[in-house]
This record gives sequence, structure tokens and C-alpha cells, in this order.
Amino acid sequence: MRTVPRATYRRLRPDERRGRLLELGRDLFTTHAYDELSMAEIAHAAGISKPLLYHYFPSKRRYFEATLREAAEEMLARTRPDPALPPLDQLRGGLDAFLGLVTHNRTAYGKLMRSASSAMEVRELLDEVRAATAERILLLAAPDGASPAVRTAVVGWLWFLDGATLDWVEREDLGREELRELLVGTLLGALAAAGAPTDGRP
Amino acid sequence: MRTVPRATYRRLRPDERRGRLLELGRDLFTTHAYDELSMAEIAHAAGISKPLLYHYFPSKRRYFEATLREAAEEMLARTRPDPALPPLDQLRGGLDAFLGLVTHNRTAYGKLMRSASSAMEVRELLDEVRAATAERILLLAAPDGASPAVRTAVVGWLWFLDGATLDWVEREDLGREELRELLVGTLLGALAAAGAPTDGRP
Repeated sequence: MRTVPRATYRRLRPDERRGRLLELGRDLFTTHAYDELSMAEIAHAAGISKPLLYHYFPSKRRYFEATLREAAEEMLARTRPDPALPPLDQLRGGLDAFLGLVTHNRTAYGKLMRSASSAMEVRELLDEVRAATAERILLLAAPDGASPAVRTAVVGWLWFLDGATLDWVEREDLGREELRELLVGTLLGALAAAGAPTDGRP
Repeated sequence: MRTVPRATYRRLRPDERRGRLLELGRDLFTTHAYDELSMAEIAHAAGISKPLLYHYFPSKRRYFEATLREAAEEMLARTRPDPALPPLDQLRGGLDAFLGLVTHNRTAYGKLMRSASSAMEVRELLDEVRAATAERILLLAAPDGASPAVRTAVVGWLWFLDGATLDWVEREDLGREELRELLVGTLLGALAAAGAPTDGRP
């Protein structure tokens, strides 16, 4: 009952092997339900032995978490704002990169937001990513320190970002730039409502 | 190993019994982890026999879902806008009622948003509540029909509402009216960014 194609074994350096396994994991967990996959099948798909797979990841749960963490880190790296740009352009640039990543990983994003978030570890990772993104935006929006209302506005807006993006992925009735400008305008509206100074920043 | 106090049996009409059980369920599921509770303990706490409890609810899962559904219906009923008021006041009234309910059910709200949403049925119920609330707001904001961008703005804002409210419940560093005005201002900002006409409505 193999549901995943078999790869051929090749000798690789440990970091290379780990990187390949994480890449494979992202594919597998996107195209299969978590419970459908076994460590045996994953090893088979990777073209390695089960003991070698266990050498890299002590359990399927840890393997899954590592692929998620890798994806989260990539997302944070790719959406890192360019400090040489004005604040609004930094925001737009970050959003473009984020929406681009989502576009190329629609299924994974939908799955993550819809169901995978059931696991405590996934929820914690999402919280970490939100916290890191909130800090980034607060540095742009209120470099001299943020009031509680401004912090809540930014936290709330990160939920808006996920809700609107999920809606966009599922309905596909909005252009990417239209969504980006909706996101930018909403953040500016939220910051203004929170009493943040509005000198062209977010 | 009883962790819940025992109630005394009293004869009640079936609808009354069901109502009391739902009320009890809300208390129990708020103060105990789902896995901690058994149908035997729930019957014990209700002062009825286990068979009588099973007569009302075929499983703990169904009982849990029924208490959630009841809470969701109460929330929708209590936050129903008064059509005699101007749109913005309808929104403020609904938000006041919502934030009041959350204030009195902080723990339950936090638990629901943080972990209970793992279960598929809970997620579906949250989606239903969001869809019903979105329709309400769209009727106020765009009575003549909403563009895709306006729909996405309202859906995203409902996520903002949950994110900001959860943050507020957890940090308690913001006044309720301050939060309400942040929510109102953000919705107006989102609607404007989505190109909705801004004639004093949301």
C-alpha cells in the first residue's frame, strides 16, 4: 500500500541529507494527511533506511515540526524588510513576499491554517511567527515604543492578515495587489484607531 | 477521584433538564480539560444517572458540541444589532455586547480560541458564527451588495476581532471602550481600503 514514490539512495553530507529530508517533508505533509504517513513510507520516499531516518528525526511528530519550523524560518527570512526603504515600502515589500510564498504554497497554507493548527506545537510555532512579525511591524510603526492599543492593533492585524489571506486562497476572487493594498490600508486604519502617529509610517 | 462536586437529583421537565445540562457543561468544560471529564463525572455533577445523561447526549463529544452551540447561539442573539439605530451605533452596540460576554467568560473564550479549536466540529462552529456575523456586517456596510474586496475585508476583520480580543483577555492592559473603538476604527479603515462607500456606515 505504498502511496509515495520511492527514491534511490544516494550518499549525502548530513546537513545536505537533513535539508533534503525537510524539503521532502514539506511535499509529503502537504499532499498527504499526517495520519496517512508512516516513518517507513517517509524513509521509502527518501530512498533511505528507516534507521537512518530515525537518526535525523526521533519521531514523525518531530519530523513534521522540523519541516514546519524550516518553512516558518524561510518565510521570515524572505519577508525580512529592507531597512533602506521608507516604512510603507518595507511593509509592501514584506507583504508581496508573503503573498508570493502563499501563492506557491496554497495547499500547504490552507492546510496549516485550517487543521494542522490543532497540534499544540503548531499553534506555538504560529504564535512565535506572529510575535516575531509583530516586533518587526512595531519597529516600523512605533520605533519609540508602542502603547497597549498599538500593540493590540498590530496583533489583531496579524490575525486579519491570516484570515484575509485564507479567504483569498479559498475564493480566488481578488487580485494579489488588491489584497496587498487592503492589508496595508487596514493596518494604517488600525494604527490610526489605536492613536499611533500617522506620519506616513506604519 | 471525583473532581467535580455532586448535585442532588431533582425532577425536571426534559427541556429544563437539557437547559441545565448545557449550563453545567459550559462550567465544566471551562474549568476542566476535556479529557479530564468522563460521562460518569458529568452525571455525578448533574445529580442524575449516567443512563439519563446518555438519554440527552449520546456521547461526551456531542455534549461538548451542544454546549458550544448553545453558547454560540446565545452570543449571536445577544449581539444582534438593533435595526432602529444608525449603522455605526448598531456596530458599537454589538461589540459592547460581545466584549461584555467575553469579559464574563474570559477563561472559556481563551480556551476556545487557544486549544478547543483543534476539534474539527469546533472549527466548523467557529466558521458558522463568523459567516453569520459577516453577513450581518455586510448588510450594514454594503446593503446593495459587496465586492470581493469588501467581503474579504469583513472576513479579515472578524479574525482581527478574535485576535485583538484574545490579546486583550490575556494582557488586560486596555480599557473595554478603547478596544471597542480600535475595532470600530479598524473596520472602517478596512472597508475604506476595500473601496467601500464611506457615508458614515460600516
